Amino acid sequence: MKRLPKRGHYDRDTIDAILDEGIVCHLGFIHAGSPFVIPTLYARSGDAVLFHGSAASRALEIAKGTLPVCLTVTLVDGLVLARSAFHHSANYRSAVLLGNAREITEPNEKLRALEAISEHLIPGRWAEVRRPSKKELLATSVLKMPIDEASAKIREGGPLDEDDDYTRDVWAGIIPLELRALAPVADERLRRGIAAPAYARRYARPRR
Amino acid sequence: MKRLPKRGHYDRDTIDAILDEGIVCHLGFIHAGSPFVIPTLYARSGDAVLFHGSAASRALEIAKGTLPVCLTVTLVDGLVLARSAFHHSANYRSAVLLGNAREITEPNEKLRALEAISEHLIPGRWAEVRRPSKKELLATSVLKMPIDEASAKIREGGPLDEDDDYTRDVWAGIIPLELRALAPVADERLRRGIAAPAYARRYARPRR
Repeated sequence: MKRLPKRGHYDRDTIDAILDEGIVCHLGFIHAGSPFVIPTLYARSGDAVLFHGSAASRALEIAKGTLPVCLTVTLVDGLVLARSAFHHSANYRSAVLLGNAREITEPNEKLRALEAISEHLIPGRWAEVRRPSKKELLATSVLKMPIDEASAKIREGGPLDEDDDYTRDVWAGIIPLELRALAPVADERLRRGIAAPAYARRYARPRR
Repeated sequence: MKRLPKRGHYDRDTIDAILDEGIVCHLGFIHAGSPFVIPTLYARSGDAVLFHGSAASRALEIAKGTLPVCLTVTLVDGLVLARSAFHHSANYRSAVLLGNAREITEPNEKLRALEAISEHLIPGRWAEVRRPSKKELLATSVLKMPIDEASAKIREGGPLDEDDDYTRDVWAGIIPLELRALAPVADERLRRGIAAPAYARRYARPRR
């Protein structure tokens, strides 16, 4: 049996590119002895990842400020159709970060963290909307974890079949997949005469 | 401050629809006291979820056959642009399953589990490709977890703003997102005269 191609990457450029393209991360933590995995919005900001903490709030309370977490971002790029069932696969890029998350309590740092998450998702949006009030800021929980222990896995390219299987009378190749934005849908209560901004009309994730 | 709409669902139809539409799940487990979250391919089969176990193999070895896991599937449907930063959100559907996964060791059960994962991803494919050899079957690890403790969260619809904010001069609405298949790409070594099958040319996830 052929060995699979090496998929591990540890360089920050590769990891950052995955983190910067993703929309949702999956946050893993332990609560009452059991593993939990919750999707949440996030952003990379330099050497740290910031994310909404409400889903982990109970676990965080018990952890008293520092919560061991695993934060994973996965981008699915396609399905790989081989000539044998065994060699079917998916093309994907994933980043897995391990570390301790702490809650951001200082109001200015929290505000900057929320701005980073907003700009990660919709660059340009923050400047156009009402900023959080003190009350809203208090009602929001934002966590920060340093990018210390991180790795990326990437699978790309076509199927790798056994030599004997290449003569088989079956199609093989890739079904590429991409996350695509459709035309923006205006809110029912939108005031007349406000056009959808360019960042909504031409929304796309940054791909490096 | 307005309360957010209720997002929790516990009925199996809702949970099954999310599981059946997803391509990748995020599997959470504890290894050496730390949480891990790994993306993997899976399928629902009746009242259980089946998934590839190689990523969790070390943890599984230590757990001696039964591994407490959290399996989460998230479908991102759009970004929700409100008039205030605080009320920005994402439309999504997620299913979170808690339980114990065990390895499938009986060869026929394992073969059926691999068929289920294959058919979940590409219906019709299994019948056309070479089945796993005994050696390949042994080299594959498949886990099974019952759908016991499961919940779904769904956020849909437009932004919900504070009353005072509706007069603001800023666009609000939804940027819908969808995972789309592009035209299939034939393998470089594909034999001449084999056309891409319909399931590759018109690939789409089942949406209920």
